Amino acid sequence: MEVDKHDILQLLHALSRGDLRPEDVVEQLEAARTVETPDAQVDIDRAHRCGYPEVVFCEGKTAEAIADVFHVLIEQQQDCFGTRLSPDKAETLLNRFTAAHYNPTARTIHIPGPQPIEPAGNVVVITAGTGDRPVAEEALETAKWMGCHVKLIVDVGVAGPHRLLREKPNFVDADAIVVAAGMEGALPSVVGGHVSCPVIAVPTSIGYGASFGGLAALLGMLNSCAANVTAVNIDAGFKGGYLAGLIARQTVS
Amino acid sequence: MEVDKHDILQLLHALSRGDLRPEDVVEQLEAARTVETPDAQVDIDRAHRCGYPEVVFCEGKTAEAIADVFHVLIEQQQDCFGTRLSPDKAETLLNRFTAAHYNPTARTIHIPGPQPIEPAGNVVVITAGTGDRPVAEEALETAKWMGCHVKLIVDVGVAGPHRLLREKPNFVDADAIVVAAGMEGALPSVVGGHVSCPVIAVPTSIGYGASFGGLAALLGMLNSCAANVTAVNIDAGFKGGYLAGLIARQTVS
Amino acid sequence: MEVDKHDILQLLHALSRGDLRPEDVVEQLEAARTVETPDAQVDIDRAHRCGYPEVVFCEGKTAEAIADVFHVLIEQQQDCFGTRLSPDKAETLLNRFTAAHYNPTARTIHIPGPQPIEPAGNVVVITAGTGDRPVAEEALETAKWMGCHVKLIVDVGVAGPHRLLREKPNFVDADAIVVAAGMEGALPSVVGGHVSCPVIAVPTSIGYGASFGGLAALLGMLNSCAANVTAVNIDAGFKGGYLAGLIARQTVS
Amino acid sequence: MEVDKHDILQLLHALSRGDLRPEDVVEQLEAARTVETPDAQVDIDRAHRCGYPEVVFCEGKTAEAIADVFHVLIEQQQDCFGTRLSPDKAETLLNRFTAAHYNPTARTIHIPGPQPIEPAGNVVVITAGTGDRPVAEEALETAKWMGCHVKLIVDVGVAGPHRLLREKPNFVDADAIVVAAGMEGALPSVVGGHVSCPVIAVPTSIGYGASFGGLAALLGMLNSCAANVTAVNIDAGFKGGYLAGLIARQTVS
Amino acid sequence: MEVDKHDILQLLHALSRGDLRPEDVVEQLEAARTVETPDAQVDIDRAHRCGYPEVVFCEGKTAEAIADVFHVLIEQQQDCFGTRLSPDKAETLLNRFTAAHYNPTARTIHIPGPQPIEPAGNVVVITAGTGDRPVAEEALETAKWMGCHVKLIVDVGVAGPHRLLREKPNFVDADAIVVAAGMEGALPSVVGGHVSCPVIAVPTSIGYGASFGGLAALLGMLNSCAANVTAVNIDAGFKGGYLAGLIARQTVS
Amino acid sequence: MEVDKHDILQLLHALSRGDLRPEDVVEQLEAARTVETPDAQVDIDRAHRCGYPEVVFCEGKTAEAIADVFHVLIEQQQDCFGTRLSPDKAETLLNRFTAAHYNPTARTIHIPGPQPIEPAGNVVVITAGTGDRPVAEEALETAKWMGCHVKLIVDVGVAGPHRLLREKPNFVDADAIVVAAGMEGALPSVVGGHVSCPVIAVPTSIGYGASFGGLAALLGMLNSCAANVTAVNIDAGFKGGYLAGLIARQTVS
Amino acid sequence: MEVDKHDILQLLHALSRGDLRPEDVVEQLEAARTVETPDAQVDIDRAHRCGYPEVVFCEGKTAEAIADVFHVLIEQQQDCFGTRLSPDKAETLLNRFTAAHYNPTARTIHIPGPQPIEPAGNVVVITAGTGDRPVAEEALETAKWMGCHVKLIVDVGVAGPHRLLREKPNFVDADAIVVAAGMEGALPSVVGGHVSCPVIAVPTSIGYGASFGGLAALLGMLNSCAANVTAVNIDAGFKGGYLAGLIARQTVS
Amino acid sequence: MEVDKHDILQLLHALSRGDLRPEDVVEQLEAARTVETPDAQVDIDRAHRCGYPEVVFCEGKTAEAIADVFHVLIEQQQDCFGTRLSPDKAETLLNRFTAAHYNPTARTIHIPGPQPIEPAGNVVVITAGTGDRPVAEEALETAKWMGCHVKLIVDVGVAGPHRLLREKPNFVDADAIVVAAGMEGALPSVVGGHVSCPVIAVPTSIGYGASFGGLAALLGMLNSCAANVTAVNIDAGFKGGYLAGLIARQTVS
Repeated sequence: MEVDKHDILQLLHALSRGDLRPEDVVEQLEAARTVETPDAQVDIDRAHRCGYPEVVFCEGKTAEAIADVFHVLIEQQQDCFGTRLSPDKAETLLNRFTAAHYNPTARTIHIPGPQPIEPAGNVVVITAGTGDRPVAEEALETAKWMGCHVKLIVDVGVAGPHRLLREKPNFVDADAIVVAAGMEGALPSVVGGHVSCPVIAVPTSIGYGASFGGLAALLGMLNSCAANVTAVNIDAGFKGGYLAGLIARQTVS
Repeated sequence: MEVDKHDILQLLHALSRGDLRPEDVVEQLEAARTVETPDAQVDIDRAHRCGYPEVVFCEGKTAEAIADVFHVLIEQQQDCFGTRLSPDKAETLLNRFTAAHYNPTARTIHIPGPQPIEPAGNVVVITAGTGDRPVAEEALETAKWMGCHVKLIVDVGVAGPHRLLREKPNFVDADAIVVAAGMEGALPSVVGGHVSCPVIAVPTSIGYGASFGGLAALLGMLNSCAANVTAVNIDAGFKGGYLAGLIARQTVS
Repeated sequence: MEVDKHDILQLLHALSRGDLRPEDVVEQLEAARTVETPDAQVDIDRAHRCGYPEVVFCEGKTAEAIADVFHVLIEQQQDCFGTRLSPDKAETLLNRFTAAHYNPTARTIHIPGPQPIEPAGNVVVITAGTGDRPVAEEALETAKWMGCHVKLIVDVGVAGPHRLLREKPNFVDADAIVVAAGMEGALPSVVGGHVSCPVIAVPTSIGYGASFGGLAALLGMLNSCAANVTAVNIDAGFKGGYLAGLIARQTVS
Repeated sequence: MEVDKHDILQLLHALSRGDLRPEDVVEQLEAARTVETPDAQVDIDRAHRCGYPEVVFCEGKTAEAIADVFHVLIEQQQDCFGTRLSPDKAETLLNRFTAAHYNPTARTIHIPGPQPIEPAGNVVVITAGTGDRPVAEEALETAKWMGCHVKLIVDVGVAGPHRLLREKPNFVDADAIVVAAGMEGALPSVVGGHVSCPVIAVPTSIGYGASFGGLAALLGMLNSCAANVTAVNIDAGFKGGYLAGLIARQTVS
Repeated sequence: MEVDKHDILQLLHALSRGDLRPEDVVEQLEAARTVETPDAQVDIDRAHRCGYPEVVFCEGKTAEAIADVFHVLIEQQQDCFGTRLSPDKAETLLNRFTAAHYNPTARTIHIPGPQPIEPAGNVVVITAGTGDRPVAEEALETAKWMGCHVKLIVDVGVAGPHRLLREKPNFVDADAIVVAAGMEGALPSVVGGHVSCPVIAVPTSIGYGASFGGLAALLGMLNSCAANVTAVNIDAGFKGGYLAGLIARQTVS
Repeated sequence: MEVDKHDILQLLHALSRGDLRPEDVVEQLEAARTVETPDAQVDIDRAHRCGYPEVVFCEGKTAEAIADVFHVLIEQQQDCFGTRLSPDKAETLLNRFTAAHYNPTARTIHIPGPQPIEPAGNVVVITAGTGDRPVAEEALETAKWMGCHVKLIVDVGVAGPHRLLREKPNFVDADAIVVAAGMEGALPSVVGGHVSCPVIAVPTSIGYGASFGGLAALLGMLNSCAANVTAVNIDAGFKGGYLAGLIARQTVS
Repeated sequence: MEVDKHDILQLLHALSRGDLRPEDVVEQLEAARTVETPDAQVDIDRAHRCGYPEVVFCEGKTAEAIADVFHVLIEQQQDCFGTRLSPDKAETLLNRFTAAHYNPTARTIHIPGPQPIEPAGNVVVITAGTGDRPVAEEALETAKWMGCHVKLIVDVGVAGPHRLLREKPNFVDADAIVVAAGMEGALPSVVGGHVSCPVIAVPTSIGYGASFGGLAALLGMLNSCAANVTAVNIDAGFKGGYLAGLIARQTVS
Repeated sequence: MEVDKHDILQLLHALSRGDLRPEDVVEQLEAARTVETPDAQVDIDRAHRCGYPEVVFCEGKTAEAIADVFHVLIEQQQDCFGTRLSPDKAETLLNRFTAAHYNPTARTIHIPGPQPIEPAGNVVVITAGTGDRPVAEEALETAKWMGCHVKLIVDVGVAGPHRLLREKPNFVDADAIVVAAGMEGALPSVVGGHVSCPVIAVPTSIGYGASFGGLAALLGMLNSCAANVTAVNIDAGFKGGYLAGLIARQTVS
């Protein structure tokens, strides 16, 4: 059981004043911060601790198991957001949760909670090629769910350099930028050289042969000569969007 | 030559009004944004474009070549910051630039410019072990150079879990956290689970055998189950600190 | 033919006393320690030599070939235990061996032998996520087959740190712990820091991109900073459970 | 701050009875479980939590920094044990701690604490070649420090199969066996086939070319067809010995 | 927006003479060099900038999306060339573009533009085995589309050395040679030793086991002891043919 | 055109004596050593040059293309041998070549030539597990086709050490031994320690997780501490059998 | 002995006319195309066969052995060119060959032959950073030795995008371009997008951590989305320059 | 203790006849097949079991430890052969064993035993470049020690194809060929295409960049399209020579 010192002190004072019995204190410390479903331990404290509620990674879970988690979150008045959701499971869930929105390219599902977030912070998502779009849209939906203003710029890879420059006015003032690119993964470095905000590079598995499923792009991004570029896992659109969202929201807070 | 459309429009109006001759316009567009030294093309426009002046990666450069770049930056009234500077070259440079400060653990050098930055934004740097300290201090010095408030927490790896918890009050309110860890690189995930700000994970080459020079830590960090964790290159203390600094400065702006 | 010196000495004394003829001795030394089926050489001496009878790795074998081995073991009055058994082959075998029990999540089959083992020794199996459950249940069934008391704790990965702490009373007194985790594989290190018994880390292939089919988790576990953590092959639930079972049984013997 | 529920309950009862003031409780919860030296946070609670005091990995630490940790442990009446200690630093420490013992092959140092452990449990360490000896002796010293009876068998690799069989009586009854082997790392599998106890395989970096610094041996050990074999990091003699020691001590307890 | 200095100067003179208004200049500079389709930004300036129009990599694009790009190029009076086109999508496109030619082995499609190129320059494509043929034909079709004379030599791998020598008169005078080979990828080195022109080595994924999907061949080609051998990505028939075509066309220009 | 000096000298003498015209000489030098089919260049000189006719690797070739090569070889009075032949293509070929024999486990096809080879030389093929059998039978069929006496020993992996020893009389006098093993690939080293003949180790892709498709076994075999062990590619049963056959035939010649 | 058919025919006619004796023909065919030194077989036919004489890779050869090869080439009236020559061996050779020129950055040596080549063809060598300069100069010296006009552009990496654009007039008309870059290796793709000639990408080992000695740059270059980019080995300045030189010379011939 | 059944039967008959006491039998079975030195267990039975006495891998052993093993072998009337012996240790040993011969290029030492072997069998060792010579000479000395006729052909790599053809008469009739090659490792495939005997390919660590210390050559050799090529470890000259020696000796026996 992990609690911070200040909370304990308050509880202990209450206890020493007789306001609480020892067992009450323990129970309160234990306070239901996790709710168990048949398959998972839902971390309902996360919204408080990390700023956003738990997100469901739907791959490898049944529609039933996903629904169980959503019910817990809805009961807690929290937003529901799921990623890597296949179309067939999505259909089942959309029938069950009528407020849900599914983006089939991003493969994300969203059920808005009762307290809508005031949109703020600018996230731009850029792709090198059209094949990187699903990863990019996953990032986009994530940042949107976090309450950011979002913009998508597609197919501006480095082999046609004027395409990126033409779009410069559209991304130069972002609070955070996500760049999804496969193959040699050079685009984040080039974008990074044009802006002053952090650039979250998401390598994609687009490519063949020596791209080794996105490894070439990942290594390229990790070795970027642009100081404002950081990388996440291959095809990790969600994580790219989440980090960009965190940064953009912090910027305006 | 790359210029944005708005700037051109202004120049063109000046030209059409006769305020400028065509050659003047071209010269101005060309305007010395790069200064050549015998070994380098110093990007003096970077402070304007990216928010901070060019940083010198000193490894593989002579003290002479480094000094040349510093002279260009000083002339431009910019800050000088260098990384990966060996003690012997540092000695030469400290003799030459009396305002310089050298941190032998971080191997960084700093010559403050004429306009000191108002400190703002909180960056915390955490290490798993004592061996990760040089990388951590490189990150720390970088964030300090960018004008952030910085704090260092050392040796709180996951094998002794209460050590991190004891320090929680010291990092829970940071604007951005850098975590430097070698071996299995698990600490960023654990830190990420306790906070709401972005965590920049810096894998270090500390370890042996199957750590493969930091690869194990890097892979661990890329696969982190904590959504707010992103990774930079192995031993890339500078990049970790730079990204944390960018985020922290944006937060308070 | 491999026999230990002491056995030979006894046989030789019997021979020199005339109790045995040379051919008898050789036959006895040769004594059927291996029984051949059309596809395999069943090591029926293993229960004596290694403590537990041979286990059948069912992948790549026909139901027929598996049944052949089971018949040999049953004839030898030994337990039958099989792993990696697909549901369709399981159906065939369950029809044929009515005492058999099949766990479809673990994909294990068990036909108890005539001498039930007195349960003893405590093995706890812990997973980071719900996706690690099949590997965890394989470990669980293995330790149960070996006669251990077993407990399963699911979905307590490091990104939600209080989940593990809440379960601490349930695993702190185990004789051996198996931790199944994919992605960055950080959980075994964290568990290892809380207990004094050996922790068998089983990396799983859960994850994507730079998890490289479990390699990231495996490397993380091999580099664990916790001294009581050892690792087995990716997805090797059986081996994890077997080692934990061995240790737990030794502890109470 | 992490404390288990039962402890809190006791403290709270004391508090509600007025035996303790709130601040006393907090202080006690905080109770110095970590002692800071200039370079490290010494985990003095580990002996209680994990069964053995913290061990110092000496590589990359100055003799001064190591001595600081030893002083803390001695003050706490704990054993001091260090690994990867170079001869020159050893000399400095032996001058300072006269009770210390240094094994130059194992590169370990030991300063016994005030309460000697009653020797119990049998650990055997086996090497494939003579080059594996330093790693084997590190394992041996570790198990000895933990209070086990230890035995060393050297140079019995699989290319001369009768060498291992001749030694079988010397290892067949061990409680745990450590096998250190480089090159193809086949020995642990062969040893595993002869015994019923757990075998901790330690790959060594002995070999050349496609041994890739121990990677070939490590992969061989992870893929061992013997169910009682588990692996630790390359050259991780300490960890091999520690796990064997834990198992052997548990066995006799 | 990227323009070269000379162009700007001309425009500025026109502007200063009053021939153009500032807005005209900007528009002209912006001049539609990219045409957007729903899924792509077609780089219609490429033919001017790089010598050949944009080529469509058809994998992962719908027939619809490919047709959109072709319509843009046809409107621009440019050639259409597509690679990695599956037979089913090819059928759709052949129905729509009656002038199109599809090579099912190469999986390329070509719609000639209004200005046929005068054939010139000699490209020879050589394969080690019959399995390398699809990659080789992709190279062949590419060089043919670029206006080169092409020749194909199949199945002359190094294990039957006289086969290559018999064909020597057919390739010794080429302007550029493409060699497609899988397995150990030795053929480009051998070919390189016989000729004075550049040899573009294309590793193929033909092979099994330690060929690691073409990695062995790729490494072999990168390490070629023949100075005139360079390598492209695994199975990159298009790139091999494109480079050979560029070189052959330059040679005759 | 490659010819050895001695042959040329003879032809030249014939020419200078007027026995041959220059064109005759050239034609004779050119003499049809390669026969082209639509898809291949059949190396009909190989039987003379390398001792055995060309073998067809059937994977990736149509039944038609395979038949074309067989017709060429039959016309040349040579044996036909094919590997990696799927059952469906086998059916087609068996209908067409009535003398053909197909082994569905080995996936090899054989059409004996008009001059049967006198059997000689002893090749033994040994497998670690039952899963290695297809690779082992491919080796067996290959050695049999080359005219060797062959023997197969299955499922004698190192985890049950007496199984191999029981079979020792069956392999100790071989002229060459092929050992097929997956997982850790330790068996060839152990076999190599018992015999004086060469051991050809064939790693198989049997295994999972960190076996990385046979890489672990391959590395183990390359690092074998037994001096008489050499390795071929993963799953390369044909090559293992071919080398063993060559050695065994040489031994008795 | 390998000769082409046409040559043989001529010799044979001479022979049949009695102009030559058979032995003369053989000797002529054999004609000293290789000269042996104590350590090497110098391929003196290469200038004729491949366009340029043999180049000496000096690493791992003594100054003596290098001088031996140079003497052979000088005797043959050929140019001498050596790479990877350390300063100390260079000193020895410069004393011995007074016409030699040594470039200490490129580590190349050149002794011009009696027939100077008429300079023709334009090769431009570009580097991303100053650390890539030694590799770039090796390429430069190679192209110069081949008789090309050469130009060097240094330190125009993608993080400062206007630096490259400013230099565009200096490279846009090259016949072939060499780009040397370490870290993420993105520069060749960007350069490739601006020009119509072939770009030879040379990955350098400049970088640290996940650059893995140039592997990241190499993979990036192999996966380049620019069709006119091909790659050579890491740090292979010579090969980069040689290919560029071949192409440039062909262009103008 | 491992003995074969036939031997036991004989001993048992002697025992049952009273010719031997049980203890005599055991002692005889145990019969000193291993002699212990302070650092090693010398396998003196190997000459009988494997055809040749144990060879000492000298790397990592002191001159003292090597001498100890040599004394044991000399006492057993066996040949002494050592590999990887540095010049300084060689000097010590040459002083001590006056009959010893040291080859400083091969780094081998040989002390002939009392029964010289009648030379027989032909082994040819071929290298691609001059840098491969040390590995080649290690192979050569090994085969010579085994009693083979040996021949060395140096520097005939594939980039100068006529060099190999000129030497063809010198290797075409070998009983076994060793080919040592670094870089792309193509030479064994080419040699394999010219001969009918087995070719043992030894990859060397000669090369740079993407040769990855010999890995590229190793992979190339494992994937050789020539059926008579097998591979050993990188730089494993001894193993290459040993296998060739075994095959050549068998051939003539």
